[in-house]
Amino acid sequence: MRTIQTLLSAHYIVTVDNNNTVLENHSVAIDNGRIVDIVPTENATQLFNANSHIEYERHILMPGLVNAHTHAAMSLLRGVASDIPLMEWLQNHVWPIEQKWVDEHFVHDGSELAIAEMLRGGTTCFSDMYFFPEVTARVASSIGMRAVIGMIALEFPTAYASGPDEYLSKGLALFDEYKTDPLIRNVFAPHAPYTVSDSTFSKINSYANELDLPIHMHIHETQSEIDNSLKEFGVRPFERLDKLGLVNPNLLAVHMTQLNEQEIERIAEASVNVIHCPESNLKLASGFCPVQSLLDHNIRVIIGTDSCASNDDLDMFSELRSAALLAKGVSQQATAFPAQQAVRASTINAAMALGLEDEIGSLEKDKSADIIAISCDNIEGHPLYDIYSHLVYSTERSRVSDVFISGRQLLRDRTLTTISEDEILAKTENWAEKISS
Amino acid sequence: MRTIQTLLSAHYIVTVDNNNTVLENHSVAIDNGRIVDIVPTENATQLFNANSHIEYERHILMPGLVNAHTHAAMSLLRGVASDIPLMEWLQNHVWPIEQKWVDEHFVHDGSELAIAEMLRGGTTCFSDMYFFPEVTARVASSIGMRAVIGMIALEFPTAYASGPDEYLSKGLALFDEYKTDPLIRNVFAPHAPYTVSDSTFSKINSYANELDLPIHMHIHETQSEIDNSLKEFGVRPFERLDKLGLVNPNLLAVHMTQLNEQEIERIAEASVNVIHCPESNLKLASGFCPVQSLLDHNIRVIIGTDSCASNDDLDMFSELRSAALLAKGVSQQATAFPAQQAVRASTINAAMALGLEDEIGSLEKDKSADIIAISCDNIEGHPLYDIYSHLVYSTERSRVSDVFISGRQLLRDRTLTTISEDEILAKTENWAEKISS
Repeated sequence: MRTIQTLLSAHYIVTVDNNNTVLENHSVAIDNGRIVDIVPTENATQLFNANSHIEYERHILMPGLVNAHTHAAMSLLRGVASDIPLMEWLQNHVWPIEQKWVDEHFVHDGSELAIAEMLRGGTTCFSDMYFFPEVTARVASSIGMRAVIGMIALEFPTAYASGPDEYLSKGLALFDEYKTDPLIRNVFAPHAPYTVSDSTFSKINSYANELDLPIHMHIHETQSEIDNSLKEFGVRPFERLDKLGLVNPNLLAVHMTQLNEQEIERIAEASVNVIHCPESNLKLASGFCPVQSLLDHNIRVIIGTDSCASNDDLDMFSELRSAALLAKGVSQQATAFPAQQAVRASTINAAMALGLEDEIGSLEKDKSADIIAISCDNIEGHPLYDIYSHLVYSTERSRVSDVFISGRQLLRDRTLTTISEDEILAKTENWAEKISS
Repeated sequence: MRTIQTLLSAHYIVTVDNNNTVLENHSVAIDNGRIVDIVPTENATQLFNANSHIEYERHILMPGLVNAHTHAAMSLLRGVASDIPLMEWLQNHVWPIEQKWVDEHFVHDGSELAIAEMLRGGTTCFSDMYFFPEVTARVASSIGMRAVIGMIALEFPTAYASGPDEYLSKGLALFDEYKTDPLIRNVFAPHAPYTVSDSTFSKINSYANELDLPIHMHIHETQSEIDNSLKEFGVRPFERLDKLGLVNPNLLAVHMTQLNEQEIERIAEASVNVIHCPESNLKLASGFCPVQSLLDHNIRVIIGTDSCASNDDLDMFSELRSAALLAKGVSQQATAFPAQQAVRASTINAAMALGLEDEIGSLEKDKSADIIAISCDNIEGHPLYDIYSHLVYSTERSRVSDVFISGRQLLRDRTLTTISEDEILAKTENWAEKISS
């Protein structure tokens, strides 16, 4: 009999392993933050002596969801400007507010709000792009949240950095600082083809190759981005990036609503990862990402919420559902982006795209215990005929009762354990008052 | 000082009156099920002596939402078949299950499940089309839910009726039975142009004119419906209905994903009401309803969830959000179907389309007290910059704490008061077991 930290027994365990195994009446044994074994519950207490044994009678356990694209600190701008065209939204609302308010305090408090919201919604890892990324990394690490923090770069100065060289040097300092933190990874995050020059892209590409790090970037979000690039560079943004050597398996291409057949083939050939943000693309009327065409080409499509300013939440269950529904409407095929594929997209496939597949993305022996428990105790969760359909089409994040990251319980019966929701609420109301005034 | 039944004091009251007035720190006075007055909270306790006074410190009060199209009893089929093309879904899944299982017991238990789910999500009125409508009416009335019950008609026999004449006679008997029930209204509900003959339509149209009742029907849901009508009748379904005299302000046309410019103009001219079901249209890949074009023609667009078999929930907050987001994507305009319009669509405009505008749809003096309270106590509800944007883009139904219909409290702090959730859950699990086997 082995003594372990935690034993979680549940009615259903959705492992998201290679065979999409769903186990009934099994238990996950956790020690030192890792999954030691998954065994039938009837044998579990004979095999393991757990310091803590949680028996989930009517719950589903599954890997935590991965929010593959967000700007966490912008949660303080949730709903600040809706129903407004993209350029007016940016130029008259978001940018002026950011210019006035974004500093280390804003990023600290906004990141706390975002991480708290994500944890309460079953997200256990997020991939972020924003200013003062070292602050977001610090907040995530201190709460116990897993994060992939983007080393942002732009040509123009902000409160965070004076120009591309300072963005990069600050990013690399962040990378050095968090190299040994088990929860924090870094990727390069040049903002977009229209805000980053060729020479900055070349520098980033050299660093990315040297350090073998992904590059996370907005690409082909709108038609006007394409039109402007054709005017300025004579080519579409994706072709420009390809010429600069950035089109490869390390690229995480966010949005991709404007794609022709040739580009889709090149994405497939180069094993580029596409991060789809359906709700933001709808809200800003950016266009439709051709998700089913990408899947038909065996391209890895993963899912992000984008920021609270264009969504207006960080709800990955809702985003999954929107992605699965919208893909059907856009492709005119009810079979498009089926539920099982949508679940894989936001767990194991996201882990693969971020280079974290040895750590997270499925519930399997030796992986980190990043696990969420979904309650099936209320009428909204019934009947339950097919568990994947249920997770994608009928699961609300408010049914996430418990969340573990690296075996540490961060949400217990919907209450956060490592940060005070009341304090976050008070700080958020304080910011909203300042920003509105 | 007047003695009244109930006084509800709240931080925000979204009245949805003609001026979209939002009141702060006001109280709603309720007596005999009706709104007696809405006054500043500082005066309320001097003006009214209430048997029950509820003080909502951080809540929003608004009119209950209207789910304008559903098949309530089909909640027992939630998620029974997903990611399947429409005809295969109907012919190999939904219809065989219905044929085997649909009877008065199924409709009773399914309606209970649906009404419980709707109440817990802030829906206080639903417009239904299904077999054994008298059972759904009975369940709604006994729970205290407001409902507009369709008198269904089809050409082919089912367990409910042998043919069009029996459907109609049973429908009219239902109408007579509930004439004096303050919560139940009836409309005619011929299923669709492809399942109802010209002669049955003519009979229904005579009755509808005689009784001045709306006609609620699926129209132009898919392209194949159009193609088949052209083959069989030589005209598109909408034109056929127009020739039969059904195109008028009493028509509630559900889906309408396939519309040409001429049809849109005719809909506007005839003041037809369009019921938009965005999530069902997406899930079944039926096509996109051109919502913003309809609004540009001043056509009244209201919103329904459709059934749990193609959605897979009866969540009107989610449906509102999907409608507002999808309209932007489809029209390529971020300004499409703005939040305030979406809120009106599912409250006062729905009330007008159903002929209930004197009773419900806004919080105003003399209207029925059909009111919901939304908690703003958690981080997901903050910051709150604009209340309409907040209601549409960042409000989850799980934040609906309390629900009143005709002044009677049916949900208290998320617990149903007139029906047991545990009993519904047990019955639902029982049905799921039978149906799966």
